Amino acid sequence: MALINRLNNMGTKRSSAFAARLSVEQVEEGQDFAPKFDVDGLIACVTTDADTSDVLMVGYMNAEALQRTIETGEAHYWSRSRQCLWLKGATSGLTQAVVELRIDDDQDAVWLRVNVAGSGASCHVGYRSCFYRSVPVGDTSGGPYALVYHEDSKTFDPIQVYGDAPNPTQL
Amino acid sequence: MALINRLNNMGTKRSSAFAARLSVEQVEEGQDFAPKFDVDGLIACVTTDADTSDVLMVGYMNAEALQRTIETGEAHYWSRSRQCLWLKGATSGLTQAVVELRIDDDQDAVWLRVNVAGSGASCHVGYRSCFYRSVPVGDTSGGPYALVYHEDSKTFDPIQVYGDAPNPTQL
Repeated sequence: MALINRLNNMGTKRSSAFAARLSVEQVEEGQDFAPKFDVDGLIACVTTDADTSDVLMVGYMNAEALQRTIETGEAHYWSRSRQCLWLKGATSGLTQAVVELRIDDDQDAVWLRVNVAGSGASCHVGYRSCFYRSVPVGDTSGGPYALVYHEDSKTFDPIQVYGDAPNPTQL
Repeated sequence: MALINRLNNMGTKRSSAFAARLSVEQVEEGQDFAPKFDVDGLIACVTTDADTSDVLMVGYMNAEALQRTIETGEAHYWSRSRQCLWLKGATSGLTQAVVELRIDDDQDAVWLRVNVAGSGASCHVGYRSCFYRSVPVGDTSGGPYALVYHEDSKTFDPIQVYGDAPNPTQL
């Protein structure tokens, strides 16, 4: 799977768009956009709601997804479960309009601030944020830990929206 | 490197703390904390400032870092550059007190909301957030792209704080 992903990404990478990584100083202190993709050709992406600032999801982009996001202002990712370019909201209509795209110090992580269309949800399970559960902090029992819910109800019915498409969650 | 990491993590993983991943329904809709670690034994972690909601950093945790974070309420990570457990702030004093720890739908990403000690900075380059630069959205030039700075000045001098310790940024 990783090998297929790597080959796919090599095929779609448009290397001229991004600067080569030449020095730590250039990467950390310069103005060159020189993102670092991992061995599978992917970079981690945190997406937050531009209004509430809540973290909506963590996704991954290949070079093509990153460049399309920059060019169109619509969030694109690389779907690791489906192994394809993924325009967020293509099926659900819950697209993400990018207000700001930031890059971190060593340029191996992206932060998108977005406005989500429609109901504003970004989670395939139906919740607004993928992070609808918390783990109790300060629990010294050694586990197991019981999750606590922070969203009372789903914003949509996944069966109605996605039908019988394969669930992206992998065990 | 990946193999060494995997072996290290196998050695330190306390498997009884976390539930086994048995079904999609259990992982997405249940109360079992069943985090998914990748092939290197790591899980991605987004850390935000509990006051400003800004994304401060993206780090990675192995099982031990995750459990220590839960137990102590102080953010621990796995340093991929140094290949060791990393109590954030151990050198700089800029520790992160965890206000909330959330897990996402398929339980392969963690979100920490933290209060940072001292100056409130979380970036080894000296800025408050690691995400101190943005990429212009809507740029259809095809690149290269010029980064824009969003923090005017550093909160500390990295040389004074870290001395001649190796820079964690990898090219």
